[in-house]
Amino acid sequence: MALTATDMATGLDTIRRVRDLRACVASWRGAGLKVGLVPTMGALHGGHFSLVRRSVASLDRTIVTLFVNPRQFGPNEDFARYPRDEAGDAAALARQGAQVLFAPSLEEMYPEGAVTTVAVPDIGDLLEGEFRPGFFTGVATVVAKLLIQAAPDVAFFGEKDFQQLCVIKRMATDLDLPVTIEGCPIVREDDGLALSSRNAYLSAEERKRAPALHRILQSVVTRVREGGAGCVAAAEALAARELLVAGFEKVDYVAVRDASSLAPIASVGAPARVLAAAWLGRTRLIDNLPLSGS
Amino acid sequence: MALTATDMATGLDTIRRVRDLRACVASWRGAGLKVGLVPTMGALHGGHFSLVRRSVASLDRTIVTLFVNPRQFGPNEDFARYPRDEAGDAAALARQGAQVLFAPSLEEMYPEGAVTTVAVPDIGDLLEGEFRPGFFTGVATVVAKLLIQAAPDVAFFGEKDFQQLCVIKRMATDLDLPVTIEGCPIVREDDGLALSSRNAYLSAEERKRAPALHRILQSVVTRVREGGAGCVAAAEALAARELLVAGFEKVDYVAVRDASSLAPIASVGAPARVLAAAWLGRTRLIDNLPLSGS
Repeated sequence: MALTATDMATGLDTIRRVRDLRACVASWRGAGLKVGLVPTMGALHGGHFSLVRRSVASLDRTIVTLFVNPRQFGPNEDFARYPRDEAGDAAALARQGAQVLFAPSLEEMYPEGAVTTVAVPDIGDLLEGEFRPGFFTGVATVVAKLLIQAAPDVAFFGEKDFQQLCVIKRMATDLDLPVTIEGCPIVREDDGLALSSRNAYLSAEERKRAPALHRILQSVVTRVREGGAGCVAAAEALAARELLVAGFEKVDYVAVRDASSLAPIASVGAPARVLAAAWLGRTRLIDNLPLSGS
Repeated sequence: MALTATDMATGLDTIRRVRDLRACVASWRGAGLKVGLVPTMGALHGGHFSLVRRSVASLDRTIVTLFVNPRQFGPNEDFARYPRDEAGDAAALARQGAQVLFAPSLEEMYPEGAVTTVAVPDIGDLLEGEFRPGFFTGVATVVAKLLIQAAPDVAFFGEKDFQQLCVIKRMATDLDLPVTIEGCPIVREDDGLALSSRNAYLSAEERKRAPALHRILQSVVTRVREGGAGCVAAAEALAARELLVAGFEKVDYVAVRDASSLAPIASVGAPARVLAAAWLGRTRLIDNLPLSGS
């Protein structure tokens, strides 16, 4: 590993070039080791750490990637102000037991002339896709690249971005990528707010209101469990009104959907999920809950 | 290789499942062997065989894929009548020294629910892309899948489909696929007609006229070499008229372009290519020539 910078105190290598990442993974493979990958945009929190711990517990080596991917931000979104703290992230990852932080530059990921896109139509056009055009194409493209670059056995993604998890599973299956995509449960604050790097944007006042999103999604789950598929539309509409009453300025959607296709559900038999996106001031929060099972 | 059907007389294995292809390649890798891939849609001719021979000569094992990819045919194109002769192709490949014919079913390549696409904007939107919308997205998607499935060291493509070669090089680079894309020279009949599976569509009368395409492209090369970039537009227009006089019904384009980006050229210094597509009856022929060098 002559090409990597090792923090001797922690054992975490920071790698910035794809070729060095490949050399590292090839040496692990040569030793028969299994590799886990945790793609992130940095600004790491307990949600990310739960993914890292899961990888560390189940695989021999864990790579965490840190790349704030411009292609998944819209022109009016928060790419420039997205929180960045690589040094803090690296220190935390060393404590979690990861072996490699892969933190490529923009030029390394998208050299001049790079134009290829990976798109997941249908599932990527719904919900978040309606409100963030091109978002999932940006996500699918960068994740396809990371999975091809690192060639892990398992890659871990949080259920917090539930639609993203569905899109990535679809993409990895459709492109025949030899990797298992593993979704991991949402990690929440004590008051129910799902951990998110964007929570850092919330004012103290907004932070107090934010847990209403989780609480109101719980109400949707209860109502649909009790009332069946026939009450879905009413439960979605009621939840949107409740969010406004709770201090959210705008509700992009509250939707009960099939847990795989994200299509509207006709009955409550198959696994389903309630998903929502709503605005607290300038901050857009998303959250979701399973309708049945865990 | 218990899962493959071996033609004992020839040593060519026909594999139909991605998992069996992977097992085969993994066993080769384990033995330290290098692998070449030659993607085709079957209806093999001397052009394909030149790719296979090149792979056989330079790598330890050669896989030829045979898949008539519906995603690269437009609704009014010739998917249904595209020539198919797997038995003949397999016999010929055995003679050329290939080890594996990978001939997956439609369901194996695109299982129900498969929606992901790989697109190469810009370079894939020009020339052929203008006349065959979606064509290069179909090509890039299936080639990305084949490269991921087979994980070859080198993949071989003919310069006959020159823009396709450019698109695939761009795609493989952009997605970080660990493969070398090697373009191979066009193979021609004695009268200059580039070999193509679609030549089988030509009537005897059309077949006589067809070599005019190559001859007229040679004239463009001569004129632009002599006249410089300033005469490109005139040379393109003259060639289109000559094609009509030579019996072609319609000319989609004659274009002198940069050999990498396929953008119009400002000077004749950088490598350039003249490319054309024109119709003989119901058959669309394409051809191209380098403007300089070989």
